[in-house]
Order: sequence, then C-alpha cells, then structure tokens
Amino acid sequence: MTPSNEEYRTRMAQAQARMKEQGVDWLLLAPGSDMRYLSGLSARVSERLNLLALPQAGQPRFYAPALEAMGPRELATQGLFDLSVWQEDENPVKLVAEAVRREGGQQRLAVSDQMWSMFLLRLQAEITNVEWQSAAQVIEPLRIIKSAAEIAALAEIGAAADVVFGEIIKVRFSGRREVEIAELLGQMLRANQHEVAKFAIVASGPNGASPHHDAGERVIEPGDMVVLDFGGIGHHGYGSDISRTVFVAGDAGLAPSEEQLNVCNTVQEAQELAFRAILPGIEAQALDKVARDHITAAGYGEAFLHRLGHGIGLDGHETPYLVHGNATKIAPGMAFSDEPGIYLAGKFGVRIEDIVYCNEDGGVRCNEATRELVMVL
Amino acid sequence: MTPSNEEYRTRMAQAQARMKEQGVDWLLLAPGSDMRYLSGLSARVSERLNLLALPQAGQPRFYAPALEAMGPRELATQGLFDLSVWQEDENPVKLVAEAVRREGGQQRLAVSDQMWSMFLLRLQAEITNVEWQSAAQVIEPLRIIKSAAEIAALAEIGAAADVVFGEIIKVRFSGRREVEIAELLGQMLRANQHEVAKFAIVASGPNGASPHHDAGERVIEPGDMVVLDFGGIGHHGYGSDISRTVFVAGDAGLAPSEEQLNVCNTVQEAQELAFRAILPGIEAQALDKVARDHITAAGYGEAFLHRLGHGIGLDGHETPYLVHGNATKIAPGMAFSDEPGIYLAGKFGVRIEDIVYCNEDGGVRCNEATRELVMVL
Repeated sequence: MTPSNEEYRTRMAQAQARMKEQGVDWLLLAPGSDMRYLSGLSARVSERLNLLALPQAGQPRFYAPALEAMGPRELATQGLFDLSVWQEDENPVKLVAEAVRREGGQQRLAVSDQMWSMFLLRLQAEITNVEWQSAAQVIEPLRIIKSAAEIAALAEIGAAADVVFGEIIKVRFSGRREVEIAELLGQMLRANQHEVAKFAIVASGPNGASPHHDAGERVIEPGDMVVLDFGGIGHHGYGSDISRTVFVAGDAGLAPSEEQLNVCNTVQEAQELAFRAILPGIEAQALDKVARDHITAAGYGEAFLHRLGHGIGLDGHETPYLVHGNATKIAPGMAFSDEPGIYLAGKFGVRIEDIVYCNEDGGVRCNEATRELVMVL
Repeated sequence: MTPSNEEYRTRMAQAQARMKEQGVDWLLLAPGSDMRYLSGLSARVSERLNLLALPQAGQPRFYAPALEAMGPRELATQGLFDLSVWQEDENPVKLVAEAVRREGGQQRLAVSDQMWSMFLLRLQAEITNVEWQSAAQVIEPLRIIKSAAEIAALAEIGAAADVVFGEIIKVRFSGRREVEIAELLGQMLRANQHEVAKFAIVASGPNGASPHHDAGERVIEPGDMVVLDFGGIGHHGYGSDISRTVFVAGDAGLAPSEEQLNVCNTVQEAQELAFRAILPGIEAQALDKVARDHITAAGYGEAFLHRLGHGIGLDGHETPYLVHGNATKIAPGMAFSDEPGIYLAGKFGVRIEDIVYCNEDGGVRCNEATRELVMVL
C-alpha cells in the first residue's frame, strides 16, 4: 500500500483540525514517521535540515537542502506542499522562523518527537515567546488507529517474518557465533520482502538473560536456549517484529531441562492469555497485567523485566505501550506487540512475540510461526 | 582501538574543564557519538531514555532502562560512572531532573545534538528557569582533533573501503538494478572489516545528477556513468566514506563521451587541488573555494551542488564542515572528506571522495583506490 496524495491530504486536514482544537499554530516535522505519515516523504536524518511545516490552516511547506531536493520537488509539483530549497551556506532554521513569524499571532508550536535537539534549540533561539510541545499530541491519535491498508501491510510483512523463522530453524546453530546467525537472519529478511533488515537479536545461553542483548561473538553450544528477535521494514514503510526462542539440541539430540521447559511454557501461556484478553475497551495496562500475573503466579514475576509490548506502525515502537500506568483503551485498528519474557541471570532467557491487532471482536495475530519450543541443530 | 577507561576519564575531565570555562552546569547526553566519545557507551536510541549526565565537577551518572542495564552495569562496576536503573513504569526524566535540582544553582544545561526533541521538551518542562544549549559547544573542540589512535582507525577502515571498491568494479553492472549493486556493496563491506554497512549510493545515468539519490530500481545500462558512494562502521566505531564514479563500458566496450570525460577530469582535478591545499591554518571554507573555483572555471560551478566535505569520526558527518562561511582553521588531527561533484540534470553526475586528515605537513589520504575513471562491464 502506498497511500494516494488524496489520502495524504486527508491526513493533513485531520491534523489541522486537531491543531485548531488544541490551539497549535504550527507542526514542525523532522524526517521520520510523522512526516512520512502525513506527506509520504522519507527525507534524510542528518545535520542538514529537512522539515515539513504545517500551519493550522493552509498549505504546508517543505524545506529541503539543495542536494536532496529532487524527491520533494516531484511531490511539490503534484501540489502536496510548497517547497523551499536552501543552499549549503544558508541557515534553514532562519527560513522556517521567518515563515512562522510572517503569519503572526503564534502561541504554540509543536515539533516531532524524533527531531534532533540541535534543531529544536535553534528554532527556540529564533522563535521566542511561544510555547513548544510535542507533535505527538496532534498526530498520535491519528496514527494509533490503523487503516485497513495499514493493517494489511503489517500482516503481509509479519507473514514474511514467519517465513524467515521457518528458514532460520533449518540452519545449524551449534558452533556458530551469534553474529553469524544474525547475519543470516538479515539476508533472509532481505530475501523475503524486507527492504531493510533492521535488527536481529541472537541471544544464546546466558546472553538471553539480557532482553536487549544484540548479537555477539559467543559461540552457540548444544544445550543453549537462544532468543531470536528480528524484523525489518517493508517497501510500504511498515515493519515486522517477531521473537521466538529455540533450543539447541545439537547432533547428540540433547533435550531441554525441566526448568527450560517450564519457563518456555509459562511464557507461551502468558503470551496466549494476553492475546485472548484483547478486546475493544480493555486498557493497555490490563493486557500487561494479564501476562504478568500469570508469570508471577509461576514464580517468575521479578524476571519479566519489561512491559508486555509496544505499538507498531511507521515506527517500530510507538503508542500504545502495554505497560503498567497506561490507561489507554484498546480500540479496533490498534496494532502492537504481545511479547512477555522471562530472564534468568547467568542462565538463559525466553521471549515469545507476535505482532497483533485489535478488531471489533478481539485480537488477530500477524505472526503465525509456531510458538512451541523448536529444536535446532 | 578501544580507548581505556583511563582515556575516557581524561576526556570527561577535559569536558568538565570546558564546562567550567563556559559556565555549563551539566552535560546531558543521549545515546550517540558524544556519549560514546566520553564514556565508551553505545546505548540504544529509542523511546526508552538512556542518558549520561555529567556535572561540572564530580562523578557522572548513567540512567538506563532495566532491560538494557547489563552493559552499563559492567562499566559502572569499573567506576567510570554511577548507575541509576529505571523501571518500565517510572519516568526517567523526573529522575534526571531531581538529580540536577539536588545540586542547586544551575544556570546552563547542555544537551547532545542528536537527543530526540521529546526528551528535551520533557527535560525543559521539569527543569525550568535555566538556559539550554547544545553540548557541541563543549565537546566539539575535543572531538574535532583526532588522536593518533582515532586517525589509525579511520585509516584502517578507509583501506577496507578501498578493498571493497576493488571488488565491486569486478562485478557486472549492465542489466543489474542499482539496488543489486548496493546489496553487493553491503555484503562486501561486512566481509571487509565493517561491522555495519551504513549506506551505499548507486546512482546510475540521470540518477547520478541527484547527489543523495540512494539506490533504486533503475536497470544500469552500457554507456551509463554510475556514482558509487558507500561506507560503514568498523568495530571501533569509526567509519569509512568513499565515492568513485565508474563508466559502464558493457560487452560492446563503449567509450565515455567527451563531456563525460571532461566532467570526470574536472572533478578529479578539483579533488586533487583541494587535497594539496590542506595545511594547518587554512580555513575550512578556503578548501571549498579551491575546488569550487576550479569547477567554476571549467564552466560547471552551478552544477557543484554541495559543500566540499564534512568532518568524520564517531559520526559520519561532523565538524569541520568544508563550506562557504566556515572560517574554522584546519589543524593537525582534523579528519574530513574531500568530495567535489558535478551534477548535470537529466544526464549524469560525477563525485570523487576521499577521507583525508591534516598533519603538521599537510593532508594525508585514508583512501588510495584509483581516482581515474574505471570501466566496468
């Protein structure tokens, strides 16, 4: 799915309606998910400012450095926004500030969450006596509810990640370093519909006890549990994110210990219970609690080191976050990860993660790769 | 080179000395090059705050989310900094703000350039009545002068990029899409000392006229000029960045046109002239002017769309920028790209780029791959 210019115009109009409600005069968006959601533009993140400035009413304007102006120029000729091209020895922040000041009467300006602070500080120095806030207050309520096309994109890329899991469990793990398995995952993602292979956690044995261990030089051994957590981005900008934990049986055909099996079962049950609890109206924190209560009852509460999940869309992590304290009500169209884990320091870790979304009747999974403990060589 | 903890302590003490001079009370650093330069820490950039807080005097403190605390915990036990671990349902910005307020008398706080605005806005909401500035004013003067070990790292990874160029010109270009060549470049970088293959511009034919064209679906044809601009990061965190332009002779052995040859020669001469002009004391903008004057004299001044170059270190782009208006004096230890280009809309582009550094006697190149126009199949 690539949204039409009509769709982008609708989204910008929706944002402007919210700006009016909230008294926000301008949205100033750096390259990233907010910019892409509203305009389809994927500009570079660097020390050269690319910026989409959306006023509360009227036509937006895009600021591009001369050497990156070709893509924006095409879209500008289609009338989606006006274009200002700045030269290498110009200060683009001054151009933006002048435009904002020209309109007069500004009180509140909103910047995208991922804009680099160097740009916000420069904007704050040029445009004084205004309030600054996050653009998320305007755009999040739009982005958090996915359209049918966005859900289809998540489902499609999720299915591609499932295929990669099916492929990786056929390769030999024993004797290989974690980084080698990560490299293979990257290749498989790129071979399976992923334009970008974004991350591949391969956390073997005791490394699995660190939820965000990347992939290192450790040589994987028979008897290891290995947490695999990988994903990337499809051509449409929507991403995959799946975790499975495998057991390295090796040539000798080792079997997992009672503790390993017990932990795997507990995580799998917690993941399933949280999934079944998804219903329109339930609070995000309640889903976390369902999984956490189950893991706590099994005696591993302290070892579930993180929230249950995160929203997913044009960002790999976005709202809604499934975490204690978040009373956001789950609604049809919300998409997020369901990923409980248990992490035993010095021993191993287990995590099982699917991307799921909520429809009128409850949860639907974007990942269907087996959640049973798989043995690998 | 991995700096010792002693080296990191020295760097932090140097930063603190500058903070005292400038009246900066705290440096608040998000994950990125500043954090890595001062402490060796490579934390994740995400919606979960990782932050290094360095006071003007005394021990720094690192704030890590529970699930990413393992790496920082190891370094903390070595005494490099104190550690505060925050849980998923805590607000880490409040923890930072409390620590800053506890010290009392704060007037100026500095944040790293790449910190996400969402964190700066939250910090500004919690810590009021202070001035905010960029941490670059403190750290840049340190980072801009590379140590012998840093120069060695740049030279080593530059040589690895040269090897990749030697490999890519042996593959067939004709009939392949740009993205296929980019994928090969990525594989070759990873096979040649690069931990991360960060970018691979493959801009063929008319696409070459857009300096930051990535790599697309265009099928490369005999007779095309192709701009290759690629690089990545070594295990030490220092990166490569090299550009060469090749001509696709194809099986028929086509020869470049007079215009293509003329543009190539002009760019090569400009690159060489700028390189020879490197000397301690010359201004950054003077190097840009040397290359630009030569290209302008050849009639292509308008087609040299960008600055001559950028500094390189733990960031792929950092100070000094070789651009009109930058009077920074080049000094021994400064490392930067020398990359003039000519971009002819609708036709083709040519760019030649080396990473170079300045020593007492002048410039030294980190890239030695031939700058002559290479023919490929």
